[in-house]
Amino acid sequence: MMNEHAPYILTDSKSLEEALSQRLTDKGRIFILADYNTAEHCLPMIQSMLPQDGKDCMLMDLAAGEDAKSLDTAMDLYRQLITYGADRSSVMINLGGGMVCDLGGFVASTYKRGMEFIHVPTTVLAQVDAAIGGKTGVNLGSLKNMVGNFTLPSATLIYPEFLNTLPKREVMAGFAEILKHALIADHLLWTKILEAPYIDLPLIKSIIPEASHVKVGIVNRDFEEKGERKKLNFGHTIGHALESLILESPGKNLLHGEAVALGMIAESYLSMKAGKLSDDELKAISDFIAQHYKPIELDRMQFHRIIELMSHDKKNKRSKVNFTLLNGIGDSLIDQEPDMEDVMEALNYLERYPFPA
Amino acid sequence: MMNEHAPYILTDSKSLEEALSQRLTDKGRIFILADYNTAEHCLPMIQSMLPQDGKDCMLMDLAAGEDAKSLDTAMDLYRQLITYGADRSSVMINLGGGMVCDLGGFVASTYKRGMEFIHVPTTVLAQVDAAIGGKTGVNLGSLKNMVGNFTLPSATLIYPEFLNTLPKREVMAGFAEILKHALIADHLLWTKILEAPYIDLPLIKSIIPEASHVKVGIVNRDFEEKGERKKLNFGHTIGHALESLILESPGKNLLHGEAVALGMIAESYLSMKAGKLSDDELKAISDFIAQHYKPIELDRMQFHRIIELMSHDKKNKRSKVNFTLLNGIGDSLIDQEPDMEDVMEALNYLERYPFPA
Repeated sequence: MMNEHAPYILTDSKSLEEALSQRLTDKGRIFILADYNTAEHCLPMIQSMLPQDGKDCMLMDLAAGEDAKSLDTAMDLYRQLITYGADRSSVMINLGGGMVCDLGGFVASTYKRGMEFIHVPTTVLAQVDAAIGGKTGVNLGSLKNMVGNFTLPSATLIYPEFLNTLPKREVMAGFAEILKHALIADHLLWTKILEAPYIDLPLIKSIIPEASHVKVGIVNRDFEEKGERKKLNFGHTIGHALESLILESPGKNLLHGEAVALGMIAESYLSMKAGKLSDDELKAISDFIAQHYKPIELDRMQFHRIIELMSHDKKNKRSKVNFTLLNGIGDSLIDQEPDMEDVMEALNYLERYPFPA
Repeated sequence: MMNEHAPYILTDSKSLEEALSQRLTDKGRIFILADYNTAEHCLPMIQSMLPQDGKDCMLMDLAAGEDAKSLDTAMDLYRQLITYGADRSSVMINLGGGMVCDLGGFVASTYKRGMEFIHVPTTVLAQVDAAIGGKTGVNLGSLKNMVGNFTLPSATLIYPEFLNTLPKREVMAGFAEILKHALIADHLLWTKILEAPYIDLPLIKSIIPEASHVKVGIVNRDFEEKGERKKLNFGHTIGHALESLILESPGKNLLHGEAVALGMIAESYLSMKAGKLSDDELKAISDFIAQHYKPIELDRMQFHRIIELMSHDKKNKRSKVNFTLLNGIGDSLIDQEPDMEDVMEALNYLERYPFPA
């Protein structure tokens, strides 16, 4: 479980097919978990790569989106696995974005105390983040990833061509995690992004190897998140709370990556307040994010709810709220515990930041 | 997670108190999971050993018995942990039998991707088996331990004096696992048991170290049950199926250990059929079990349901049913796949075996 983990980046369908068939030789029944987007856009290709064109594989499909990422869905999937006879020789392929990888990884890693699974991430977020590093999880009500574990897939197969069919909003949400990887650990990648004429799909596809590399390095040094891995939480303490808040607000929606982008503005402000980030750096980060993401409307009463939601964060110890802050661009500091007044200020900064219309 | 695992056997309350306080120093809030039996008989002692007499610890209690070992209960426990602010510095103490250890271990190991937990087993079964080796699990309907993982507690503290308040039926059910450990790997222990004038609590308390030692050795050599650990499944393939069958039969009940005892008769028969156990050995085992356990009434139609239930066993691969059989008394063979006709014969042997009234 603790072995070195490296995803395979496969630039053509032939090598994806080879990588898949290598891992499915001598295995039993194949189960594919897909959401309705990937079932339409990615599944036919994967099935054509399986023995007998995937006729013997069992398809488990899901509604897309965070609502399906629950213990109730997990229970439904366990029952399907039982009904269709999944056993210790079976393999589950998680074909989708973060939700499919997190949920599928959780179900596979706990079904009969663990069946083998392979991640085939199909979104930017999953390719550079969710499918790497063995975190699995489901939500409990509006609290994100409250239940989960650390279990590595037997392989993560990244095929950037799958991104071609993604809606632009999804692409940009996932791009927030790339930005985070640059900000916490890769100044060169940040420069490359700032200097790119357009933040578009060709650029994003071209930087997936570097962006996933940042995460791979960190999780191989600290698999169970005792230390360095917490760097990856930059933008997520406030980001998760914003996400939970929106889950509680009927009619509104915010993708995980969008919440993280906004969280990174607020947490960069906290980094500045802690004396670790210059005013210029804060402005460069805030401007870049404001240029590519939509603002969030908050009233001050919601600030308190956000702080309340942060107190449930998995990273906390002894009722302190744990943050990762930037130490300049391209470096980061874990286990920071800013005052709640500063957090209020940071939310205020985020709320009033001028986003171009 | 893969570290060497050894339980601590504590023969007086002073050393139990020391062992506990050593593991709770510098930790946050303590959560104790108990069933209503242990809440009455064991909890007061444990609480008196905690800082401030346990006034700050959070008690989560459960109905005793297998029914509570479900994902619904797990969900309820997650919610209690959230409500009372469990975080990464918190520790959960599982005070009880196999159900409490399996369920508590599962919940703790998956809450926020893992909080620390300590097993304090209070039954024979838990002291020699369930609390050792890191298997966690909950049932899915009548299917046992369908959902779970492998996660070691930070310590297993065995205090045999807790057994004093157990009903005799519970003691004898747990004793079946001791018998299993003797049969699969410790001929000397088998002889000691056979030669004992009485199978009573003093004898059982005296052999807990040897019986737990068998399990510790095996799980340290094969934590994830790739090979040798399957030896511990002797008696369990048929035993689990009998247990599931009884769960489906309103009004009847059968403890896990009782099911395993009966399973060991049937699986000893299979060992004899496979030419690995002599007729005399089979008779010695069957007589001993028949002398200490109650028979089960089965009709032939139920034999088929039992075989159907065995097909869901976690140990199976590719629709073969996997057994561990004895290779003489004190040795065992994993990955045996007897014919289903022989299994029918074995059930017939079990059903007709003369149990003294």
